[in-house]
Amino acid sequence: MGGDYGPSYTVPAVVQALLHFPELNIQLVGRESDINAELDAQTSILPRSIDRDALLSRLTIHHCDHVIANDAKPSAALRNSRGSSMRETIDLVARGEADAAVSGGNTGALMALSKHGIKMLPGIERPALVSALPTQSGQPVWLLDLGANIDVDSDTLYQFAIMGSALAEQHLAKVPKVALLNIGAEASKGNDTIKSCAMRLEQTPSINYIGFIEGHEILLDKADVIVCDGFAGNICLKTSEGIANLILNKLKQHFFGHPVKKWLARILFASALKELKALNPDQYNGASLLGLRSIVIKSHGSADKTAIINAIGEAVHEVKRQIPQRISDGLETVLLERH
Amino acid sequence: MGGDYGPSYTVPAVVQALLHFPELNIQLVGRESDINAELDAQTSILPRSIDRDALLSRLTIHHCDHVIANDAKPSAALRNSRGSSMRETIDLVARGEADAAVSGGNTGALMALSKHGIKMLPGIERPALVSALPTQSGQPVWLLDLGANIDVDSDTLYQFAIMGSALAEQHLAKVPKVALLNIGAEASKGNDTIKSCAMRLEQTPSINYIGFIEGHEILLDKADVIVCDGFAGNICLKTSEGIANLILNKLKQHFFGHPVKKWLARILFASALKELKALNPDQYNGASLLGLRSIVIKSHGSADKTAIINAIGEAVHEVKRQIPQRISDGLETVLLERH
Repeated sequence: MGGDYGPSYTVPAVVQALLHFPELNIQLVGRESDINAELDAQTSILPRSIDRDALLSRLTIHHCDHVIANDAKPSAALRNSRGSSMRETIDLVARGEADAAVSGGNTGALMALSKHGIKMLPGIERPALVSALPTQSGQPVWLLDLGANIDVDSDTLYQFAIMGSALAEQHLAKVPKVALLNIGAEASKGNDTIKSCAMRLEQTPSINYIGFIEGHEILLDKADVIVCDGFAGNICLKTSEGIANLILNKLKQHFFGHPVKKWLARILFASALKELKALNPDQYNGASLLGLRSIVIKSHGSADKTAIINAIGEAVHEVKRQIPQRISDGLETVLLERH
Repeated sequence: MGGDYGPSYTVPAVVQALLHFPELNIQLVGRESDINAELDAQTSILPRSIDRDALLSRLTIHHCDHVIANDAKPSAALRNSRGSSMRETIDLVARGEADAAVSGGNTGALMALSKHGIKMLPGIERPALVSALPTQSGQPVWLLDLGANIDVDSDTLYQFAIMGSALAEQHLAKVPKVALLNIGAEASKGNDTIKSCAMRLEQTPSINYIGFIEGHEILLDKADVIVCDGFAGNICLKTSEGIANLILNKLKQHFFGHPVKKWLARILFASALKELKALNPDQYNGASLLGLRSIVIKSHGSADKTAIINAIGEAVHEVKRQIPQRISDGLETVLLERH
């Protein structure tokens, strides 16, 4: 039910995801009539070569009337969550009836419900929101926290680094380079929280800590994982999206504003537009809530069908690589190193 | 002596600024031999129609051997500043022998020396660094603080709002819209510092406070002045510069990577490139240190000649509009409103 467009976007994405990931089973939680109407429309246009019944056998619908509003406060959402699609989704994961939850709904509510229903990994206090951004080379860089924790201490930042490193390692198949986002590269820069976290990371052999990184270096492939508090991370991500969208929209206006230019731009600069679009931070979708005992993926509210499929894909990947277990292992290694 | 290129960039910019602003007198502080060598080279290529002696009569050189290093810590720079070009420049302003200082040197040192030598306006505790960014419409938006103050309380944020509003009003000739940078638009978002500052701004009639603004809205002309702590502001500005530079460089590679494309791009998309370049946050130069009794402008270390002229132009503008006095007036108005 989540996201700006509800089932009219999620249901088509789910049908495509079932086609794309043959091992995937999906449980859709929400208003059954809305879901079924979209599902009928989607399955009726499937090519005849596809076995409609086999596809639908991998899909279950859990009816829920109640939907948590996008502007509900997390505390209120938590209190009034009973019977809501988000709460039921989290409960399915908490009971082990689903391996991962994907939601396009209210981020704060999703975090509160996840923390309450699924519980945290031992040693982690609060979930962190992490997402990948495209860089200069085309490689992703993981940024966390993106807004789940605005006041953090050095312990929490340190946990973010361990969790981000564990996640990125499963994507990159190498020990990722971890950096702290700061306003300068020198050791004297930043507040006490950052400086004290930097000192601890320097003394942690299992983390490949490379030091401080500044805002303009995020996309230059210097680091694979960038750690900061949720305020800085949210500002950083949204500012990037804002300026990238603005530049790309202006470019499109110029390219496509005149028929001849449009024709020439399509022929000559198609690869340019494609490469530039690939730099837009919102092309990736599927932010993970790290630190929980199970997998919860937040899809962008404004995500389109492809973006929702990406978020489902991230969930599939994290289930296969058992990310919560990897994070647990990472925490244990760090604890053993310390003693 | 400051900036990445020293007198080889500052001296040509100064000669152009003298031509551009007929009412301007400039005092150059630094190594006389280096300055004179550049000055000879610059004046020898001036058109014959320009009165070289008249131009040079508006230029004075103060010799200084010592230059504060770019990587010097502010505290160390302050201790060892005697006889340095930056210290002498600030002292000229402090003694009233110059109306404004412009420096491309070490930002932290410039702030420490300015605060120590020039003193703060009554009611302001620390200088804030502010700069304009280009927006969607082409109008600038002022963002502060850009890194001078990383741990701020609600009082300091509130002072930033008053100072930023006073500065923008002198540029826009209207009461500017002031917003606080936050991770959501709802009143419940952000930490206690931001929320308490928001409440005070709502009760301040002389400030046109419009509420919270998110990272992706900075360039959408919703606000004229955006206020945040120096950590968020620095990350926000540098991230914007990073992604804008990356996209524009990729675009140039595509446009100019092939002779035919280059020719076509020049003919068809010259206006596009120009407009996109104008969106790059680092096109403006000349960040002001607000809250001092006199005017101090920080020029980007990597500023080119045009950018340095812009920084000098900002100094000229601020002298003409008596920005420190305007800020003082703004503070007084707010104090009177409160009683």
